[in-house]
Amino acid sequence: MKWKRSERLVDMTYYLLEHPHQLIPLTYFSDLYQSAKSSISEDLTIVKETFEEKGIGLLMTVPGAAGGVKYIPKMSDQEVKGIIQELIKELGQSDRLLPGGYLFMTDLLGNPDLMNRVGKVFASAFAEKQIDVIMTVATKGISIAHAIARHLNVPVVVVRRDSKVTEGSTVSINYVSGSSRRIQTMVLSKRSMKSGQRVLITDDFMKVGGTMNGMKNLLEEFECELAGVAVLVEAEHADEKTLVDDYYSLVKLHEVNEKDRTIELSEGNYFSKEREL
Amino acid sequence: MKWKRSERLVDMTYYLLEHPHQLIPLTYFSDLYQSAKSSISEDLTIVKETFEEKGIGLLMTVPGAAGGVKYIPKMSDQEVKGIIQELIKELGQSDRLLPGGYLFMTDLLGNPDLMNRVGKVFASAFAEKQIDVIMTVATKGISIAHAIARHLNVPVVVVRRDSKVTEGSTVSINYVSGSSRRIQTMVLSKRSMKSGQRVLITDDFMKVGGTMNGMKNLLEEFECELAGVAVLVEAEHADEKTLVDDYYSLVKLHEVNEKDRTIELSEGNYFSKEREL
Repeated sequence: MKWKRSERLVDMTYYLLEHPHQLIPLTYFSDLYQSAKSSISEDLTIVKETFEEKGIGLLMTVPGAAGGVKYIPKMSDQEVKGIIQELIKELGQSDRLLPGGYLFMTDLLGNPDLMNRVGKVFASAFAEKQIDVIMTVATKGISIAHAIARHLNVPVVVVRRDSKVTEGSTVSINYVSGSSRRIQTMVLSKRSMKSGQRVLITDDFMKVGGTMNGMKNLLEEFECELAGVAVLVEAEHADEKTLVDDYYSLVKLHEVNEKDRTIELSEGNYFSKEREL
Repeated sequence: MKWKRSERLVDMTYYLLEHPHQLIPLTYFSDLYQSAKSSISEDLTIVKETFEEKGIGLLMTVPGAAGGVKYIPKMSDQEVKGIIQELIKELGQSDRLLPGGYLFMTDLLGNPDLMNRVGKVFASAFAEKQIDVIMTVATKGISIAHAIARHLNVPVVVVRRDSKVTEGSTVSINYVSGSSRRIQTMVLSKRSMKSGQRVLITDDFMKVGGTMNGMKNLLEEFECELAGVAVLVEAEHADEKTLVDDYYSLVKLHEVNEKDRTIELSEGNYFSKEREL
């Protein structure tokens, strides 16, 4: 079957979006569509320009015999700003206030469209870094971890509070929870990571950073390297400093007034971090 | 800016893929691209034919003033069969055997590309059913639940074993675990679901079906309706019957021989279920 350009463009767009951060040889497309490489190159130029024009992402061309094309999900600053504003508006609703000054966020973490976009935001920030694994702690960070992982095309590992038979042999560490100062345990399956891997840690919420710090310690046990930290919401706290100082956040929670039922939020450090680079 | 057809096709494909199961009015595209509705219709015909030809999905056109176009992710039987064979091959590796005859599957559940495809398989099976919510139990089913949810464009709710302050008020039930016959507890945030919603339950593994049955009971507490059950791997067991009899599975685990280190697997009931409809 001979493919028309219009059909190739639709199918190629689908294929590239389904295979982010993967090098696809031009021969893959020319064989699939029974078309000359020069036609495929022209197709890819159209895809590339549209992806860039619309803030969908970048299309990187790697020349040479081992070369090909790679789709890098990359969101425009404007779209990121829109998502942050959407999150602030959502999280600021007074019915999210829970006893103890906590915020109900479970519905947002269960919203696949929002999580997909949040995942793309963080994947954009780490697009140029070498990331081998996304790590999170059960349960609430899992949807964010998978959303980022999908855009970066790397596996997710989930740290647990307890050991389960289905995890096989595990490595366990104790750490001090940041806010409550209690000793807690973290467990990770031994098969989860290989030594030398670069790991992006993520979670839905960070206060003092005790859990994040626990995951950092766990990385050392696996002889892995911290490649970055991504949190949806960071909270201001009385302690002098967070235990983790190099992180990206989308939203910052300043104050919760349980009496007046008000929640004070602002933009996280995402854009100020970006400018550092 | 005036858009060329080729650019419109690329951007339209992206937009449709990002918004599955959502009705998009033709005016959305004609306004966005500053193009006549007749041109947009021609574009959509090309997208539709390519999506169907390549087994990407269906493009449904709803006529009339309130009409538009809707992308329904739908995988070809051939691709589903390929995924099932891939799963059987992966799960049959003897180093997955754990003490007690369990299988190590955590790496597969953490593979975003595989989970995305598994999600599309189940989303294809339930494409014509009314599904309002995907429910799973922490921790291992979460990645499957989110993958299905993304293709059906519905929220995920996660049932927990314990109550956490960040969940707000919760509903809790006791149920009997199928295999161990122990009494266990399940907890779900009250805000997770509204009465009358139709819920698809999913998990990575089902033996007797005790956990699934627990989730079914939880649905009743919320006055919600069971719309379907989707499991990655079902296990054959000595008991006469599973507690849940209407479900889709991709892989069936027949026998595990710990001495010889062999694992016997076959295709689940996915295609025999499909034929029932």
